[in-house]
Amino acid sequence: MKISARNVIDGTVKEIKKGVTTAHVLIDISGATITASITNESVDELGLKTGAKVKAVIKASDVMIAVS
Amino acid sequence: MKISARNVIDGTVKEIKKGVTTAHVLIDISGATITASITNESVDELGLKTGAKVKAVIKASDVMIAVS
Amino acid sequence: MKISARNVIDGTVKEIKKGVTTAHVLIDISGATITASITNESVDELGLKTGAKVKAVIKASDVMIAVS
Amino acid sequence: MKISARNVIDGTVKEIKKGVTTAHVLIDISGATITASITNESVDELGLKTGAKVKAVIKASDVMIAVS
Amino acid sequence: MKISARNVIDGTVKEIKKGVTTAHVLIDISGATITASITNESVDELGLKTGAKVKAVIKASDVMIAVS
Amino acid sequence: MKISARNVIDGTVKEIKKGVTTAHVLIDISGATITASITNESVDELGLKTGAKVKAVIKASDVMIAVS
Repeated sequence: MKISARNVIDGTVKEIKKGVTTAHVLIDISGATITASITNESVDELGLKTGAKVKAVIKASDVMIAVS
Repeated sequence: MKISARNVIDGTVKEIKKGVTTAHVLIDISGATITASITNESVDELGLKTGAKVKAVIKASDVMIAVS
Repeated sequence: MKISARNVIDGTVKEIKKGVTTAHVLIDISGATITASITNESVDELGLKTGAKVKAVIKASDVMIAVS
Repeated sequence: MKISARNVIDGTVKEIKKGVTTAHVLIDISGATITASITNESVDELGLKTGAKVKAVIKASDVMIAVS
Repeated sequence: MKISARNVIDGTVKEIKKGVTTAHVLIDISGATITASITNESVDELGLKTGAKVKAVIKASDVMIAVS
Repeated sequence: MKISARNVIDGTVKEIKKGVTTAHVLIDISGATITASITNESVDELGLKTGAKVKAVIKASDVMIAVS
């Protein structure tokens, strides 16, 4: 499957923190960490586990840039 | 300045592609590339140039996860 | 590929209106029409054409509800 | 009221699943289903019930396209 | 019409800057200014003009908070 | 720190309503109120309290316009 989102980045699940309905999934991207907030339901449906190979999908318009 | 967005990731500007009003800024994040779509106006105001140290700011709820 | 977005809806491309950098793609969803705004670059990479079978991918948190 | 969002689609509430603070509302759009994630508070304020006529409001830039 | 977005704020159009396809609309909110980026098409359909009474509609999850 | 988001608006925290994992923070913007939905974790990290001076950060593309 190919998607119109500009960012489809390979990573590895580092940690999954499940809340009541929402989970925070920490993804290792060649050393950097990206946190995704998705539903617990999605975590289960995708079969996510620590160490799993995943793709972080982010629209380019959802990436802001900050400078010090 | 601190911000409520969960992802504030250090990177380096790799390339800036200016369009008519919108620019695509490619940011190197420890080897991976993240593309941000921001206004040309923002590129100028932030003084972005190839090689500049920046932070990619992304809300956790804007990060989706895909698996093959 | 499976994705964490709650809405992955089957549809057919009805019309593609390319602008300078952004395209509006009208997708027929069992009679209703959903418009997606994506880059011209994505239209080309995905090989989109009128009549193509596609999936509209929308996060549940990006769907608002209005009542009269 | 008219709104700048490109997608204002007529539908019927099919099911409401209330969580602790967030509800998932399933909307029938001429046979297809779109899920909206809104606050329980909004469900109450809008007086949403199964069978209610509603509009799903989605910005075109929040619709991604995927192809197999 | 009532909508599930938490922020529906009364304002007055201060300035409209049309680009090739996208317009920046500056809205005065009791002295503060909020900028909306919408399509030129929406500007025309809504009949927006300087001085027009409008509502800025923003989902609560799209508002970030920063502190110095 | 400067950010690419078009709206960085000065305000004062009016009220903080913590939920299980998400907080609604009401910000006074020269008389108008903007509600932000952020994680409880962010509220703590930013040290938010009633009366605190903050900035509401909103991308221009996340502001819709409605007219009656």
